[in-house]
Amino acid sequence: MTPPLSRERLLAAAMSIVDEEGAEALTMRALAGRVDRQVSSLYNHVSGRTELIELMRAKVVERIDVRAFSTKAWDVALGEWARSYLMAFAQHPHLIRLLATTPIRDESTLAMYNEVVRALTEAGWAAGESIAVLRTVEAHVLGSALDIVAPGNMLDAAAVPEELPALRAALAVEHHSAGAAEAAFDLGLTALIAGLRERNGAPSA
Amino acid sequence: MTPPLSRERLLAAAMSIVDEEGAEALTMRALAGRVDRQVSSLYNHVSGRTELIELMRAKVVERIDVRAFSTKAWDVALGEWARSYLMAFAQHPHLIRLLATTPIRDESTLAMYNEVVRALTEAGWAAGESIAVLRTVEAHVLGSALDIVAPGNMLDAAAVPEELPALRAALAVEHHSAGAAEAAFDLGLTALIAGLRERNGAPSA
Repeated sequence: MTPPLSRERLLAAAMSIVDEEGAEALTMRALAGRVDRQVSSLYNHVSGRTELIELMRAKVVERIDVRAFSTKAWDVALGEWARSYLMAFAQHPHLIRLLATTPIRDESTLAMYNEVVRALTEAGWAAGESIAVLRTVEAHVLGSALDIVAPGNMLDAAAVPEELPALRAALAVEHHSAGAAEAAFDLGLTALIAGLRERNGAPSA
Repeated sequence: MTPPLSRERLLAAAMSIVDEEGAEALTMRALAGRVDRQVSSLYNHVSGRTELIELMRAKVVERIDVRAFSTKAWDVALGEWARSYLMAFAQHPHLIRLLATTPIRDESTLAMYNEVVRALTEAGWAAGESIAVLRTVEAHVLGSALDIVAPGNMLDAAAVPEELPALRAALAVEHHSAGAAEAAFDLGLTALIAGLRERNGAPSA
């Protein structure tokens, strides 16, 4: 006997489909197959694919920590938020493009943005610019999440021909650890926030 | 009569599949269907899906301009490269995750990286760090490309509840133009490069 359907069960099944087969594989038909039911019975629990996407968004956003914005300087808080955002999405790389290009209706996500924007504007950022800061830090995080989930041999010294000595030399001394992508993210996030601090002219921590 | 098969024709068909149906839809079977041939006949032209991915990579990278690295200061060149990189990928959003997580074997891509690393190390960056700079700027670009292809109503003031006044106010004054994502990218790229310049201590332009 299959367990009873519920929103939670459909959400878990939808996440599995996206994680295993990619975002395009998420259809109501594929979901019905995964939970072994008729397509029509899914609609007793969710209104359709759009709602499922917002449920998945809420599930990922639940892991992102915004608390620092109410206790720390904006630049420090932005860094902590970005790191927690990265970890949440690095577990679901196939969701990145889907969530980054689907209109946001999930209220928990909007509440998270509200908190970021509130802290940035209180720290002296103009209201319109605070949205640009939010967007560009998010873009940095999502692009970095893709780099972090990439296989370790993405850019392999052994694949670089001898005619490209600068790249061969640099790869030879790079940290060949699983942490190379994280180190690059740290370097970039630190630089990005330093540049934003310079632009804002606001006090740093 | 269908036109004769060639690598170029298979590359164009593969790009269409990915652009229209997503990266996961690219299989040798789907490609055979698209060009109206047997799967086996494809192997007279390409060795398989891995080679097709590298051909697609080369096609996108062909549009990225690295010339500034041989004529301008590293920070200015990095900005010009990033902007041209963004435009190349914004036309193929479904390729972003695929190319960002598949080991790079295409020589034109490696040659591009070699040029970036050569210029960065000549400007004083340590060899290992030059790879981190390359990776983090790429991550910033790819995340921003997703934001730029997102629909204009991604984050819509009308969808924000009244209990979230900071976000509502910020969205009300944000530029509601197709250029908002580009403006955020500009703000972020400028900040990122300013932060990298500060870190390197190298002369700016």
